[in-house]
Amino acid sequence: MFYHTKELQFNARVSKPDPRFARLLLEQFGGGNGELKAAMQYFVQAFTVKNPYPDQYDMLMDIATEEFSHLEIVGATIQMLLSGVNGELKNVAEEDEIMSLLGGKAAKEGYIHEAMVNPQFGVLSGGGPTLTDSNGVPWTGAYVNANGDPTVDLRSNMGAESRAKIVYEYLLKFTDDPYVKETLKFLMTREVAHFQMFEAALATFQPNFPPGVRQADPRYSNVYFNMSKGAEARGPWNDGTSTQLGEPWKYVADPQAQVEKTNGLVDSETDDTTKTSQSLKEMEADLSKKKVKEINSATPEKDIQWSEYGVKNKNDNKA
Amino acid sequence: MFYHTKELQFNARVSKPDPRFARLLLEQFGGGNGELKAAMQYFVQAFTVKNPYPDQYDMLMDIATEEFSHLEIVGATIQMLLSGVNGELKNVAEEDEIMSLLGGKAAKEGYIHEAMVNPQFGVLSGGGPTLTDSNGVPWTGAYVNANGDPTVDLRSNMGAESRAKIVYEYLLKFTDDPYVKETLKFLMTREVAHFQMFEAALATFQPNFPPGVRQADPRYSNVYFNMSKGAEARGPWNDGTSTQLGEPWKYVADPQAQVEKTNGLVDSETDDTTKTSQSLKEMEADLSKKKVKEINSATPEKDIQWSEYGVKNKNDNKA
Amino acid sequence: MFYHTKELQFNARVSKPDPRFARLLLEQFGGGNGELKAAMQYFVQAFTVKNPYPDQYDMLMDIATEEFSHLEIVGATIQMLLSGVNGELKNVAEEDEIMSLLGGKAAKEGYIHEAMVNPQFGVLSGGGPTLTDSNGVPWTGAYVNANGDPTVDLRSNMGAESRAKIVYEYLLKFTDDPYVKETLKFLMTREVAHFQMFEAALATFQPNFPPGVRQADPRYSNVYFNMSKGAEARGPWNDGTSTQLGEPWKYVADPQAQVEKTNGLVDSETDDTTKTSQSLKEMEADLSKKKVKEINSATPEKDIQWSEYGVKNKNDNKA
Amino acid sequence: MFYHTKELQFNARVSKPDPRFARLLLEQFGGGNGELKAAMQYFVQAFTVKNPYPDQYDMLMDIATEEFSHLEIVGATIQMLLSGVNGELKNVAEEDEIMSLLGGKAAKEGYIHEAMVNPQFGVLSGGGPTLTDSNGVPWTGAYVNANGDPTVDLRSNMGAESRAKIVYEYLLKFTDDPYVKETLKFLMTREVAHFQMFEAALATFQPNFPPGVRQADPRYSNVYFNMSKGAEARGPWNDGTSTQLGEPWKYVADPQAQVEKTNGLVDSETDDTTKTSQSLKEMEADLSKKKVKEINSATPEKDIQWSEYGVKNKNDNKA
Amino acid sequence: MFYHTKELQFNARVSKPDPRFARLLLEQFGGGNGELKAAMQYFVQAFTVKNPYPDQYDMLMDIATEEFSHLEIVGATIQMLLSGVNGELKNVAEEDEIMSLLGGKAAKEGYIHEAMVNPQFGVLSGGGPTLTDSNGVPWTGAYVNANGDPTVDLRSNMGAESRAKIVYEYLLKFTDDPYVKETLKFLMTREVAHFQMFEAALATFQPNFPPGVRQADPRYSNVYFNMSKGAEARGPWNDGTSTQLGEPWKYVADPQAQVEKTNGLVDSETDDTTKTSQSLKEMEADLSKKKVKEINSATPEKDIQWSEYGVKNKNDNKA
Amino acid sequence: MFYHTKELQFNARVSKPDPRFARLLLEQFGGGNGELKAAMQYFVQAFTVKNPYPDQYDMLMDIATEEFSHLEIVGATIQMLLSGVNGELKNVAEEDEIMSLLGGKAAKEGYIHEAMVNPQFGVLSGGGPTLTDSNGVPWTGAYVNANGDPTVDLRSNMGAESRAKIVYEYLLKFTDDPYVKETLKFLMTREVAHFQMFEAALATFQPNFPPGVRQADPRYSNVYFNMSKGAEARGPWNDGTSTQLGEPWKYVADPQAQVEKTNGLVDSETDDTTKTSQSLKEMEADLSKKKVKEINSATPEKDIQWSEYGVKNKNDNKA
Repeated sequence: MFYHTKELQFNARVSKPDPRFARLLLEQFGGGNGELKAAMQYFVQAFTVKNPYPDQYDMLMDIATEEFSHLEIVGATIQMLLSGVNGELKNVAEEDEIMSLLGGKAAKEGYIHEAMVNPQFGVLSGGGPTLTDSNGVPWTGAYVNANGDPTVDLRSNMGAESRAKIVYEYLLKFTDDPYVKETLKFLMTREVAHFQMFEAALATFQPNFPPGVRQADPRYSNVYFNMSKGAEARGPWNDGTSTQLGEPWKYVADPQAQVEKTNGLVDSETDDTTKTSQSLKEMEADLSKKKVKEINSATPEKDIQWSEYGVKNKNDNKA
Repeated sequence: MFYHTKELQFNARVSKPDPRFARLLLEQFGGGNGELKAAMQYFVQAFTVKNPYPDQYDMLMDIATEEFSHLEIVGATIQMLLSGVNGELKNVAEEDEIMSLLGGKAAKEGYIHEAMVNPQFGVLSGGGPTLTDSNGVPWTGAYVNANGDPTVDLRSNMGAESRAKIVYEYLLKFTDDPYVKETLKFLMTREVAHFQMFEAALATFQPNFPPGVRQADPRYSNVYFNMSKGAEARGPWNDGTSTQLGEPWKYVADPQAQVEKTNGLVDSETDDTTKTSQSLKEMEADLSKKKVKEINSATPEKDIQWSEYGVKNKNDNKA
Repeated sequence: MFYHTKELQFNARVSKPDPRFARLLLEQFGGGNGELKAAMQYFVQAFTVKNPYPDQYDMLMDIATEEFSHLEIVGATIQMLLSGVNGELKNVAEEDEIMSLLGGKAAKEGYIHEAMVNPQFGVLSGGGPTLTDSNGVPWTGAYVNANGDPTVDLRSNMGAESRAKIVYEYLLKFTDDPYVKETLKFLMTREVAHFQMFEAALATFQPNFPPGVRQADPRYSNVYFNMSKGAEARGPWNDGTSTQLGEPWKYVADPQAQVEKTNGLVDSETDDTTKTSQSLKEMEADLSKKKVKEINSATPEKDIQWSEYGVKNKNDNKA
Repeated sequence: MFYHTKELQFNARVSKPDPRFARLLLEQFGGGNGELKAAMQYFVQAFTVKNPYPDQYDMLMDIATEEFSHLEIVGATIQMLLSGVNGELKNVAEEDEIMSLLGGKAAKEGYIHEAMVNPQFGVLSGGGPTLTDSNGVPWTGAYVNANGDPTVDLRSNMGAESRAKIVYEYLLKFTDDPYVKETLKFLMTREVAHFQMFEAALATFQPNFPPGVRQADPRYSNVYFNMSKGAEARGPWNDGTSTQLGEPWKYVADPQAQVEKTNGLVDSETDDTTKTSQSLKEMEADLSKKKVKEINSATPEKDIQWSEYGVKNKNDNKA
Repeated sequence: MFYHTKELQFNARVSKPDPRFARLLLEQFGGGNGELKAAMQYFVQAFTVKNPYPDQYDMLMDIATEEFSHLEIVGATIQMLLSGVNGELKNVAEEDEIMSLLGGKAAKEGYIHEAMVNPQFGVLSGGGPTLTDSNGVPWTGAYVNANGDPTVDLRSNMGAESRAKIVYEYLLKFTDDPYVKETLKFLMTREVAHFQMFEAALATFQPNFPPGVRQADPRYSNVYFNMSKGAEARGPWNDGTSTQLGEPWKYVADPQAQVEKTNGLVDSETDDTTKTSQSLKEMEADLSKKKVKEINSATPEKDIQWSEYGVKNKNDNKA
Repeated sequence: MFYHTKELQFNARVSKPDPRFARLLLEQFGGGNGELKAAMQYFVQAFTVKNPYPDQYDMLMDIATEEFSHLEIVGATIQMLLSGVNGELKNVAEEDEIMSLLGGKAAKEGYIHEAMVNPQFGVLSGGGPTLTDSNGVPWTGAYVNANGDPTVDLRSNMGAESRAKIVYEYLLKFTDDPYVKETLKFLMTREVAHFQMFEAALATFQPNFPPGVRQADPRYSNVYFNMSKGAEARGPWNDGTSTQLGEPWKYVADPQAQVEKTNGLVDSETDDTTKTSQSLKEMEADLSKKKVKEINSATPEKDIQWSEYGVKNKNDNKA
């Protein structure tokens, strides 16, 4: 169950309205790397994790809930940057008089120009945030990655936090408002903190590479295909030893020849005598057995209930 | 700021897994009338309302937060209905042996058939909910209506609650699980409760019709155009007096003739002598002045701050 | 069957081209609360209604067809506001000479600036309307709400008309062209008229609350959960009697405690002795029987035909 | 302005309900090649054409309006194929008794299975059509092509009609209902008719190739790049003379060598001595001047009005 | 299999950065008529064609691969037009000092203004291309038309090439950079070349009209319905003989009367005595038999393999 | 520039058609973690990297091109799994006879049932792949993450490869076809290989944490907020030292109290005396200077050219 308190997690303030920066900031409200994406991603991931891995479930729900709180901070900042717009839109009386008296023509021109920044602030949302990115494209569930395996999901999250961090970094280039910068720096820093939380949680699952259960085929896991000709480069990604499996990289300079020679790679062979088909199968079997047990033992087969009630109270009494 | 507690607002349970109903229930998780839509709609609407109308802001945030809690209930139910899928997907060891020994062929056939119910439960989400509707279409911000005016937004919400109610009603036709029906009836009833809350809140804004500030043009507000020929019907929507403005309906049986006769309606006239152009203008002016004042007086023009901190504590000490 | 006549329903005119306002006006052409949304929503709703409720079907088709006619008015206005763009885009001859002779550099700069207003007017549509909102996001069927129950659909429509009305109200702030304002006021007023038609039609279905057939559970229908802490407010939405069911509101100040005490609300009780489980069931049974009869008796079970032909002629002869 | 009459353009009938075919038929209701796409495409294209080319405008509006009428036929057929679903969804009374008495369990199983065909018929639309394709993906404005030039738009339409035709052809494979086949064959045939209308209209614009105004660069217009190696084929698309410009095809067997030799094609030369840079420029200038004149002379620069009223009446009186 | 070489197919250059034109050019990178759309459309179409029609498969893959190469050219041009943005975004050090010393306020204002051109260049992509159209709407698979029949697909492609051509033509109006114009003219010309290739390939399928296999019903294939009243026009699209089937157009001036008279067109008759129901059925049977044979004989029913390896080498040795 | 050769990179085969698995496999053709997503993501990222980091550019283009080749493998497999569908759809002759003679009714029933697997294989694509996920939702550019900074993009890619790996792992549960499993295992393994390439490339950028240039604020970077109450857990993500910055985690058990006490966190303090505001600013300045130099020095300010031609040839001559 969620609760809300009226205070923002961070004391968001703005020096003065700035509809143009409000538009940019939409990127983190309803954009692909924004706070709603983060909140929903961790929230959705948490469902499969809850029973088998309750500790990591707690972490996912802590961070998901913080991201909802950040979404509120971003929305509040946009709203403050748009101060005045909503009121102005209600001001329909005696427009002609005002216009002619107060050089309204020019004023209206300026007003229209501001509105062009994001027309929907003017004609749709009435001066409030829209659930879109900075170009007005609506948020979509397609942003959310949740694949039912913590060794995958936590890596997705490290990517997501990296992207959210850089977007805040870029946004900082586009405002001089010291209050807004303060808020952006807080939010940016939290992405850095979350990244490290996810990385630490990933390490609690062992082995965690390759992600999932199935092992890599040693005939294909250490091959580098030189598919882009000209200005070829060698680096630790195709020279030396691979980062996780520790296999020597094999550089295929001419993939076409290789493919033809090996009947479409099907006849490829591996030099690695330690990873036999049998040894990999056994490794998979062990890992699979362990994971299946962790997951299935944590869920009853019928009369399934999500929460227990009153338990905490009892414990509190004991304490 | 949001908080989360581990207990669901409602004690959601399922008798046994049912992937097919899990798919249907996605309609209320990531569908157009589902819980995320409701939560986000009221949450986004709340930003413009907070300063001028703090009481209604409190109501919107109360209901938005409850809808987030309902989203969690729906997700938890889907997860319980999918019990076993995640574990089965990890079970990759010795598959061939199992297959041949235990009539695995047929088992796999059955499994594939179940997966066809919603392929993404099987191949994408690993047996967890997806942020989509029951057809797998991702949730979109386009579902959210927030127009910066309570006389509009509260009516949008009454429509939204009506739709959410009927979808739960339909869903109840597709499950026999008594636990699931219990949960669906709770959620359905809450939509009925929320509808009445929004209706009550709408009545606190007076006048609230027409929504917004501008008044209707009496030459066009009571005209009914018979655009669909054959089997014409008369009813209170084109006969008698209009519901809100109390004007007599004028039925235009032949719109083409009327349009030609009136130079494209521009030369239309009204019989209503009470609503003169001047009287309407004054009504607009008064209403506009009142609304602009309510809104603008509630927001400072610079150094704007969203929350105050420590205030509640002080008050608590006083009490 | 639809027909078209070359005259617009309203004599739409513009004083002079204005590509910037053309962009804003797209919001009502291909936007979420625009004329296509309205037309398609009522048109799609009409299919389920036709047989059981032919009078309301006639109303839905009258209004849907009028909305298509409004879509044409909006598109025509956009086209007139873009006058000159299409011709200019064909003007590719001797561009270098023109440029150097006539200060073309500056002219082109200005032209590019105008195009930036909405690049697709310049590089995609060739100076015609696009089926998008004011930010260029394509219209989507996700805007359309049609749930197969008039007590729901008509409420959706009242919400939709309210939103369309306020968008026209906002748009009026962004143009000074008296012709365009005239058209916008006509279109805005028609939304006010349609709202009242739908409201009147809703009243012809009795009972119409709760929408649909199923009744609310009296244990949950009058409860208000205080989910957002701090600055709590009381109002007619949580104090006094509910608007439609006339139940006394019960305010739950501490939902967490309530949820724990009632085993996740499952053990909630109601004070209302008049609405017993049995009486509600009977009410549902009666209503269900009535509705099923209305619907099923209106549709044959086989050899189903949509229209009858020549009937009107016969009647005409009689008259 | 649009009108509607209650009779369908074609006497659509169904022998008996068939929810599965109803789902397939959605492809032509809200799918990418369906009737709404066609109607909206021609309707949107018509705006730029109206003033300079009133005859072709008439044709576009005739066909657009017919496509709206076809949309209604498709929707009506879907509705008839879903007969019974809406009524069944209202049948909520005494469900337990019915279930136990009448082998309801099995009946419900069957019902659920049918619903799985398209869950949204069951839980969202209440047994009516949805504005989606056969997979439930909402219709999108991205389907509509309108580029402000008849030599382009009419070709888009010939492509669109071809696609609509083949979808009806495929659909005919999936139903045995003779009434439904009759309707599908009518609709399929109309696409064939419309294709030929667009083709005839295209021929009234001369020259119409290349589409638009600008001419092709003879250094690049007749070159064929062999970008896919192995199993190369020669045919009239890279051998002989090109279809419209009548240039001899030049086959570049080794594009990489060609690109390097010609400094990235910039140093390419043409053998065609008839199409000089100057002659092409003049051709463009002439064509541009003609088109600009056609377009600009048809639209006033200010006080622009879309329709004239009463004109037809006057003429009628004369006749 | 695809390869890449570092050289662009065309020597794309820009004179100086121009973020505004970079935004416009996105229309051909991630827009509905852009290079990715073309590449993916031909690539996806190629799969069904490969076995029965290997020559046309070669052509589709040649052109698809060229379009991928054009996508790269467009992306490279956008990147060059954005030169400096990425570097500037990394420049976060000592900002306050720079600002105060160098009139940074104004500089930042200018920078913000540029960023407004497309905010995502500034805050999302870090100064690189985004996979969107010029309004920031993400590319969608809905742009791709592939219907499994060359007589349809090739016509879709002729429409697509026409649209791509006109968009390049329009884009040429918005830049003065001679290098960029050179590139745009190359790309525009290639669309003209591709159009003719598809047209030539279409002619290799005979008969190819109507597209697909099923024949048109002669009762409906030559009828023109006058659905839009007023300013009716006659032209080769409703007067004379139809372009492909050579049937005389029948003009129905009053569709409503015709529909009522013919029982919803069901009782329509044809004057054409040559196309009997039987003769059309036989034509369909012959064509169907031919096509089925072409397709089915080209694909084995089991143990299906896509490519053969080493074959070319053998042939090479022979040569 | 791209090239294509007719041989697939891997010798994809299928034992026999299987439309149901073809539908599932669409997830990797046009789905959110599929091959097109991967190909486009690396391709788009490569543009900003090319000049400053040519070695990593080479790697991105090598892998992007391989992913295009995998997209072809997946499409070819889907096509082979659909063998027979395209031919059957052309078989329209004498259907009635076939039906009655050969128990066609049942056959058609079965055929329809198969088609229900994914209706668009039957009625839209004519038995070829569609550019959608397994539910028929079109691929969208929203899947692509490219943020103009390698320390972000490479992390996005590690997440993306993890997701692609698990989807192949899940898919392997749904087919028994040994040929198809062979192909899936190859593709799955390549994701494992690519993950390690990206990880190795990330290590060549130092420092690479936090991603981007700006440093974390030490007052917020090591704080863990306990936002989800009940069943709290401690783990390396909130206990001990953070993974990258090596800071001690601070666990805030009661965030509400903390927020109120610190004036909305603004008055937070840090214990870390080594990271002063000044030292962080200097670190940022150094890193910023380095990055700006790397990027800006690699791109000329005017007359920018993407490729050089003929260079390789010269070098080849030298060798």
